[in-house]
Amino acid sequence: MVRLATRLTERLGIAHPILSAPMALAAGGALAAAVSRAGGLGLIGGGYGDGAWIEQQFAAAGNTQVGCGFITWAMAKKPELLTQALAHRPAALMLSFGDPRPFAAEIAAAGVPLICQCQSLSHIRQALEAGAAIVIAQGTEAGGHGASRATLPFVPEAADLIARESPDTLLLAAGGIADGRGLAAALMLGADGVLAGTRFWASREAMVHERHRAVAVAATGDQTVRSSLPDIARQLHWPKPFDIRTADNAFIARWIGREDAMKAAIDTEAAAYREAFMAGDPDKAAVIFGEAAGLISDIPAAGEIVARMVAEAAALLGGAKRFLA
Amino acid sequence: MVRLATRLTERLGIAHPILSAPMALAAGGALAAAVSRAGGLGLIGGGYGDGAWIEQQFAAAGNTQVGCGFITWAMAKKPELLTQALAHRPAALMLSFGDPRPFAAEIAAAGVPLICQCQSLSHIRQALEAGAAIVIAQGTEAGGHGASRATLPFVPEAADLIARESPDTLLLAAGGIADGRGLAAALMLGADGVLAGTRFWASREAMVHERHRAVAVAATGDQTVRSSLPDIARQLHWPKPFDIRTADNAFIARWIGREDAMKAAIDTEAAAYREAFMAGDPDKAAVIFGEAAGLISDIPAAGEIVARMVAEAAALLGGAKRFLA
Repeated sequence: MVRLATRLTERLGIAHPILSAPMALAAGGALAAAVSRAGGLGLIGGGYGDGAWIEQQFAAAGNTQVGCGFITWAMAKKPELLTQALAHRPAALMLSFGDPRPFAAEIAAAGVPLICQCQSLSHIRQALEAGAAIVIAQGTEAGGHGASRATLPFVPEAADLIARESPDTLLLAAGGIADGRGLAAALMLGADGVLAGTRFWASREAMVHERHRAVAVAATGDQTVRSSLPDIARQLHWPKPFDIRTADNAFIARWIGREDAMKAAIDTEAAAYREAFMAGDPDKAAVIFGEAAGLISDIPAAGEIVARMVAEAAALLGGAKRFLA
Repeated sequence: MVRLATRLTERLGIAHPILSAPMALAAGGALAAAVSRAGGLGLIGGGYGDGAWIEQQFAAAGNTQVGCGFITWAMAKKPELLTQALAHRPAALMLSFGDPRPFAAEIAAAGVPLICQCQSLSHIRQALEAGAAIVIAQGTEAGGHGASRATLPFVPEAADLIARESPDTLLLAAGGIADGRGLAAALMLGADGVLAGTRFWASREAMVHERHRAVAVAATGDQTVRSSLPDIARQLHWPKPFDIRTADNAFIARWIGREDAMKAAIDTEAAAYREAFMAGDPDKAAVIFGEAAGLISDIPAAGEIVARMVAEAAALLGGAKRFLA
């Protein structure tokens, strides 16, 4: 089988430059391990700080090398979770959505590579100050939390900044990448690899309700939207500038522009939201995926996703000379 | 000199798969002709309907083959402008921001290829119904008017739709593309070429105030924002879902979230805006460019831009096999 080699595969000792995102609630040990076994690197989603859940997921990954990712501002309230995750000697520790610098020393002391996901150039500067081994430039088309830059122009601008200021730091692209075309494009933009969320969310191993997966398969990429509604409903106090891309469903239509009304009714609405989400109701809670849903038409095993992305990207890159007249 | 060959270069008889956007007010005959002379295809910006100005710009292009683009909803109020433009036998006629179908028959009868710029899948379906020879998938990172989809996932989804429903229709990527990396990425995503706006706006031939160009050179891609403020100030009644990406400058900071206040003071504010824009004031009027400004550090001749994009893309595509281990 063909391999795709970049600075990332060399640095991490993996076969393919593909990471699965540490999606809160959805990315457990089974998904992470499946991606790693297929030659990429899977990341367990550290989420909002449930230490027992994190232990379960590392156990589920078994002897397969996986990484772990945290929502930085949430982990900062329970920094013992970082220590706990590092005790598993993860292949990488990823931080996103908050200042990584206070945690850099502990991660470095553990000998674990730090990955910082960034949504703006100022985030990238923070990541470089934190000594990140890998920076991820995440575009607004991504599902789940993110901000406003778009992947295609953000990645080369990030590459230029890193080349000037910290050329040994690696760069990954995230946001909108679900197939070999996105992977090949990311490499042309100057990335050393990609991080994919939505595509692995829509895999057999992800901890996602069957009815939610069906929404992603049916959706086009036009049918997503960024808002803060799911975070208000969940009473999660996300800091600016982050919001969350979800399906543009009945829940969104009901509340968009009426954030204050939801806050006023939060006691009722929080419970209703939680119940609907747990039941996999596709209309009364958020269904969390990005624009890449428009590129998704099935729910394969995660290993199959890696294999498809690699085969398609390899064919495109191997044949790219055909454009030279 | 190396050439980049795609279905687009073959269909239009040009050397490189690069079009310059028909930017209202900024893309005159000199810019369009310079891009065409360099081997791409330049488009005159038909703008908001000044027939005399369009005549001047075709005259400025001289004997060089150029195309012309219209803001569809604006041209629809003066359809004689379309007839006038077609009389110049343009290399292509581009429509964006409105339903192209009412104008397709006249364009086809003139034997001129129709290009439709699209911001969603439903726009693409309209374009295919109109018999467009070329569809452009424009991402939200673009400068000037646009909508919410991002280029990287929108282009391959558009490619899949077109492959299923109208495989002879060509596809271009627009939004965030300013160098050879973006061009090479677009080809990997399934596009037959690119349309670039911001990069050519920041060229010597564009009709852009020197002080505005300096803002783009200094800006990072983080420093732009979509709003409707410039359209309110100009009393242009843009239909939904379109808004306009500009520099995130003092004008934006003053009015953002205060759209109603601007409307209430529009008699004064419209005049102040117009005066500031004409003077090239970088703070009191919109400076119209996209996220690709972060990839721009100089104001070259448009032909030099084409040459650089081609050389960089050719090097990347020619060397893409290096990723195959």
